[in-house]
Amino acid sequence: MAQPETDVRRCDSAITLAFSVLGKRWNGMILGVLGGGSASFVELRKAVSGISDTVLSERLSELAEAGLVRRDVAEGPPVSVRYELTAAGAEIVPTIEELGAWAQRNLQPRD
Amino acid sequence: MAQPETDVRRCDSAITLAFSVLGKRWNGMILGVLGGGSASFVELRKAVSGISDTVLSERLSELAEAGLVRRDVAEGPPVSVRYELTAAGAEIVPTIEELGAWAQRNLQPRD
Repeated sequence: MAQPETDVRRCDSAITLAFSVLGKRWNGMILGVLGGGSASFVELRKAVSGISDTVLSERLSELAEAGLVRRDVAEGPPVSVRYELTAAGAEIVPTIEELGAWAQRNLQPRD
Repeated sequence: MAQPETDVRRCDSAITLAFSVLGKRWNGMILGVLGGGSASFVELRKAVSGISDTVLSERLSELAEAGLVRRDVAEGPPVSVRYELTAAGAEIVPTIEELGAWAQRNLQPRD
């Protein structure tokens, strides 16, 4: 007798894709900060408390590669580099803010 | 002359709090899967492709401690253990689905 096909549940591929970026430490926070406007590297490092220069630099490259952040170089002197959201990056900001509102209602800050 | 107070931007504390849970690898996917209904440990491990038993077990404990997942033990025999969302956990599912819809529109799957 044929076995009934086992119905294995799978995490939705779109959700898996979303957390391939947002499930990486700091990325959601970086996008959230840039949602408030463009920022220099130093401003970002101060805004995302606890991140190191090396990791911030890696994350910004990854977010740029994913098409969510753009590096904007203004010819100097002095040359100034700022980071800003692309249209795809900006599109996630309201949802990130919803996550924040949910966290405020439901999670306890830990120290 | 007094220095003007420097206006240091900070990542919104609510967003920081949200990503203290969701910015940890697998957590968003586990919540997404449980959004589809309760699941046993084995069902979860199959649904969240790539996670190990040890890490899934750790994540479930953390999510339970954060008040988002509940462990439901049905007296046997055989004893059966299932995991399900609490009200606080269930409340985030629509937003996680929005993240998925955004990812589908804006991110390229990587292999």
